[in-house]
Amino acid sequence: MAGFRSKFDTLRWRDGRLEMIDQRVLPAEILYLPFDSAMAVADGIRSMVVRGAPAIGCAAAYGIALDALRLRHQPPAEFNRELGSAFCALAASRPTAVNLFWALARMRSAWETCRNADAAQSAERLLEEAHAIFADDVAANRRMGRHGAELIKDGARVLTHCNAGALATAGHGTALGVIRSAIEGGKKVSVIADETRPFLQGARLTAWELMQDDIPVTLIADNAAGHLMSRGEIDAVIVGADRVAGNGDVANKIGTYQVAVLARRHNIPFYVAAPLSTIDGAIACGADITIEERGADEVRGHGDLHWAPAGVAVRNPVFDVTPAELVTALITEQGVMRAPDACKIKALLNESRHLK
Amino acid sequence: MAGFRSKFDTLRWRDGRLEMIDQRVLPAEILYLPFDSAMAVADGIRSMVVRGAPAIGCAAAYGIALDALRLRHQPPAEFNRELGSAFCALAASRPTAVNLFWALARMRSAWETCRNADAAQSAERLLEEAHAIFADDVAANRRMGRHGAELIKDGARVLTHCNAGALATAGHGTALGVIRSAIEGGKKVSVIADETRPFLQGARLTAWELMQDDIPVTLIADNAAGHLMSRGEIDAVIVGADRVAGNGDVANKIGTYQVAVLARRHNIPFYVAAPLSTIDGAIACGADITIEERGADEVRGHGDLHWAPAGVAVRNPVFDVTPAELVTALITEQGVMRAPDACKIKALLNESRHLK
Repeated sequence: MAGFRSKFDTLRWRDGRLEMIDQRVLPAEILYLPFDSAMAVADGIRSMVVRGAPAIGCAAAYGIALDALRLRHQPPAEFNRELGSAFCALAASRPTAVNLFWALARMRSAWETCRNADAAQSAERLLEEAHAIFADDVAANRRMGRHGAELIKDGARVLTHCNAGALATAGHGTALGVIRSAIEGGKKVSVIADETRPFLQGARLTAWELMQDDIPVTLIADNAAGHLMSRGEIDAVIVGADRVAGNGDVANKIGTYQVAVLARRHNIPFYVAAPLSTIDGAIACGADITIEERGADEVRGHGDLHWAPAGVAVRNPVFDVTPAELVTALITEQGVMRAPDACKIKALLNESRHLK
Repeated sequence: MAGFRSKFDTLRWRDGRLEMIDQRVLPAEILYLPFDSAMAVADGIRSMVVRGAPAIGCAAAYGIALDALRLRHQPPAEFNRELGSAFCALAASRPTAVNLFWALARMRSAWETCRNADAAQSAERLLEEAHAIFADDVAANRRMGRHGAELIKDGARVLTHCNAGALATAGHGTALGVIRSAIEGGKKVSVIADETRPFLQGARLTAWELMQDDIPVTLIADNAAGHLMSRGEIDAVIVGADRVAGNGDVANKIGTYQVAVLARRHNIPFYVAAPLSTIDGAIACGADITIEERGADEVRGHGDLHWAPAGVAVRNPVFDVTPAELVTALITEQGVMRAPDACKIKALLNESRHLK
């Protein structure tokens, strides 16, 4: 079977600026918004025009490139000061996904290699690096997909939570990339998509993305996952990650932890698909990961529609931590790591440093 | 502290007909709909004007009374045939909550006691029985509340799922009745309400009902319950039930099972508050309980708003089964049954038959 080619772009470089599909209005509208500065990209990340850890990383990289291009006729001191601010603005946009910080660190390294160049040359180099981050993400997802596909049995009914698809990455997807690769390899796979309140990434994005590719998908309320597991209707769970701690604990979309606990109770394998850029070796365990809390209105309703009583108190943590002990395997572009732990992750990070 | 007196009626008898608050439009609108026949009440149950196992039972009882009154000038054969149809229509309205069948059985017994009476006298007797079912439910909830309140510690942060409040009963509530009684007894209790997709009983009904009584309530997405438990922010869980099997397995709103699994993982007590009328001694275990599946549009969006792609496949089971082993205690009007099992439930049902 030929590889899937997405009928949409999550983000793309067009005519000297970044365009991103507006994930807040999908699937009702397919709308590409233009971005021409780091500040605009930071706003786009904060307001969730773009979401998904790898996609956020790519967007941030292009945000730096946009400001570098915008400032390329400035004197070096001005260029350096302004570009430093761009890094700060992007780093402050969302706290949990580590790919954001990883991509910014990679852009900073690229910038450092051209300290002696003029602003125009630096800008050129930074745009190249953003393109490379984008291309590397697609390539990593394809490799991850091939490794992960071996874990998916023919005929499997696979539950996924949130959207870890092409829409969450530069293309192909992490969790959904594994499913795409399994199908490319000739397997029949159907997906059960948790709707993923409050932002409804499953109902709006995963369902839409899979229907675009004619991959069978059934939408359920998040509350129904345990019931379907108890009836033997789920064969595997696969999710993405926003940050993997040094011991294998996984921060991902709120509700992931619950799915992992349920999968364990029912002896269903629970897989996490994430590129190396999602692993944060600097963080020892999940308890140290900052969990973003967002506004109350996301829980009081959806969009402009509020169904809860006005003014009701809300807690809205948008990520949670799944302890490594609940993760059957971590799938990266380097292969499948069963029962992830601190030793295995340290070895993987060391090995991948040697490969670079 | 004085007892809570609700500022609303879930259902009430006014001017010879039944009025029910329309739970589909709460809290945006406080609207009482009139019902003047069993068929209208059956439609009201099916379309969820009224929901909650004990409230459905009361509504069905009044549905029979309404048809009996409507038919009271008919000859006996006509009265009997038509009233038999009313029982069938109401029994077919929703499959999972056993209180519906329990209330209908009680109405049928009352009817049988007046086989020799004329239709008008039978109608009078059936209306009396419906009023008695209503009054008994409030009294049972108050007794249940007093028993259950002993389990709730001062300062407790109690998670509840769906709405098992005054809106789910004739008044006071089952799970929320326990919380009301604990507060009446002088304890400080705050409630964390799962929003309870897809019908959003938590966001729309529990939040509204508790705010009416100035009971502190915080609304969360269903996905956030496990995260809050892992952070030590939940001290107890209390829910209602739609049907309790003879072995203590509990059918309740979809998602209840997940909360129970999470509570067990975190050593948080998981309580079920339900009147004896919810216990179905005829059903051996939860696997034998019929689980209603409702339409796809409830999951594709909310009300008229659809956010999922048009035509996406959906599974929408609206109840699930929590095995008895996950239930710390079952609270009934007869007291607190720790670690419910088949023996204890059989003894309780026998004892309560003797009390009648």
